[in-house]
Amino acid sequence: MDAGELLNLLGNENRRRILNLISQKPCYVTEISEHLEVSPKAVIGHLRMLEESGLIVKKPSEIQNDNQRRKYFHIAQNMRLEVTVSPYKFGMKRAYPARHSLDISSCQYISLTMPLLISESHPLENISTSSDHAQKISSNITLAASQLRELREIEKELSIAQRWVHGKIITLLDNLSSSLGGANNTDASILLALSKKDTMHEDDISRTFNISPLILFERLEILEKVGLINKTRESTWRLN
Amino acid sequence: MDAGELLNLLGNENRRRILNLISQKPCYVTEISEHLEVSPKAVIGHLRMLEESGLIVKKPSEIQNDNQRRKYFHIAQNMRLEVTVSPYKFGMKRAYPARHSLDISSCQYISLTMPLLISESHPLENISTSSDHAQKISSNITLAASQLRELREIEKELSIAQRWVHGKIITLLDNLSSSLGGANNTDASILLALSKKDTMHEDDISRTFNISPLILFERLEILEKVGLINKTRESTWRLN
Repeated sequence: MDAGELLNLLGNENRRRILNLISQKPCYVTEISEHLEVSPKAVIGHLRMLEESGLIVKKPSEIQNDNQRRKYFHIAQNMRLEVTVSPYKFGMKRAYPARHSLDISSCQYISLTMPLLISESHPLENISTSSDHAQKISSNITLAASQLRELREIEKELSIAQRWVHGKIITLLDNLSSSLGGANNTDASILLALSKKDTMHEDDISRTFNISPLILFERLEILEKVGLINKTRESTWRLN
Repeated sequence: MDAGELLNLLGNENRRRILNLISQKPCYVTEISEHLEVSPKAVIGHLRMLEESGLIVKKPSEIQNDNQRRKYFHIAQNMRLEVTVSPYKFGMKRAYPARHSLDISSCQYISLTMPLLISESHPLENISTSSDHAQKISSNITLAASQLRELREIEKELSIAQRWVHGKIITLLDNLSSSLGGANNTDASILLALSKKDTMHEDDISRTFNISPLILFERLEILEKVGLINKTRESTWRLN
C-alpha cells in the first residue's frame, strides 16, 4: 500500500471514525455500527476495504467466556503518514517506526537526550504469573507511564523542530524566488525545480515547465557554464 | 479547514495530481487538463473544491506579454499533515511552518546544530535591480542551494528521530499490554486509554470501553487508591 492508496482510504470520514474507534479497543461489526450510528452494511463495506489494504485485521475474541465467537477488528499496522503542501512542494511519505537497528547517534545536526528506557532485553515482568499482582501492575504502569510521558515530550519537541525547519525552508525559497524576480524566470524555475529533487531528467523539466527542448538545452548549458548546475549522467541534472 | 476536511480533499487521486502539478508551476485550467489527461470539466470541479478550502488560489498571470489574461492556480498554504495509525492510536494533526517567534533552544530533549542561515533581516539582494545580474544570481542561488541542502538534511534527521521515538513508544506499549495480560483487562484498558490522552472524562471511558458506569466508578476508585490515576476535575481523570 503506497501513500496514495492510504490517502484514498483515509479520505472518508466514516473510515476515519472506524479507525479511531478500534484504536481505542478492538470491536466487532455490531458494536462499530452502534457506536458510530452507521448501518451494519456500510460498516462491513468500510471494514472490507480497510482489511484488504492490510491496515486492519480481524481476530476471534480473546475473552474466554465469549461464546459467540465474534470477530474483533484490530488495527494491524504502525505507521505515520506525512503530507506536505506548499507552493514549493506537494509530497506524501509514509514512515514506519524504527524498532531496533536505527542509530540516531550518527545524526549530524540533531542530538537527543535519551530518556531512561525500559531495556528491550528486560521487558516488563509478566503480571499474570506473578504473586503480588496489584503491586507489580502498579509499579509497571507507573514506570511505563513516566517513560511514555518523556517519549511524548520528545515527539512534541521534534514536531516543533520540524515546524522550525519548515519555516526556514519557506523563508529561504520565498526570498530566493522574489530575488530572482518571480517564478516566470525560466532559469529560476529550473533552479528551484532542481533544488526540490536530488536530480531531474531533462524530459521532466521540459514537461513540467512547458519549455521547448531547444530552449531548455540552451538554458541548461548556460547554467552549467556559470557553475550553478551539473550533469550527473546523460540528460540528468543536479544543483551544484 | 480541519485535518478531516483536508483528508477528504486529499482522498482523490486527481486532486493530488493537480496539487503536485501546480506545486511545480502555477497552471491554468487547460494546461492542467492536458498535463493530467483529465477533462476540463472534472478539473474545474476539483479546482473549485480546492479553492473553496483555501488550499489553492487563482491569480492573473504575472507574465507581461500574456494577453489572454488567463487565471493561474497556485498553492496558497504551507502546511504539513501528519496521520498516525497504530493499534494504540489513530491521530491526525496539521502543522504550520514556524516563521519567526518559535524558540527551539528551549527544547529539553533535543538540540539542533543550527546551520548558517541567510539572516531574515538581510534577505537575498534583489537581482532585477542590480547591475551585475548573472553573477549575483549565481552567488545567491549557490548560497541558497547550500543552505537548502543543510535544512533538508535536518528534515531527514528529524524524520529518523521521529521513527526512533515512534518505535520506542510502540515497544513500550506492546510490553505493557502483554505484561497486563492483554487488552481485555478492564484496568489495563482504562490505564492505556488514559496514557493516550492528557485527561479523559468518565463518560468517554465508559462509552469507549462499553463499561457500565457503576463498574467503571468502582475500578476508577481502586486505581486512584493505588495511586495510578487521579482526578483533574469533576469526572475527569489523568494518569499519575
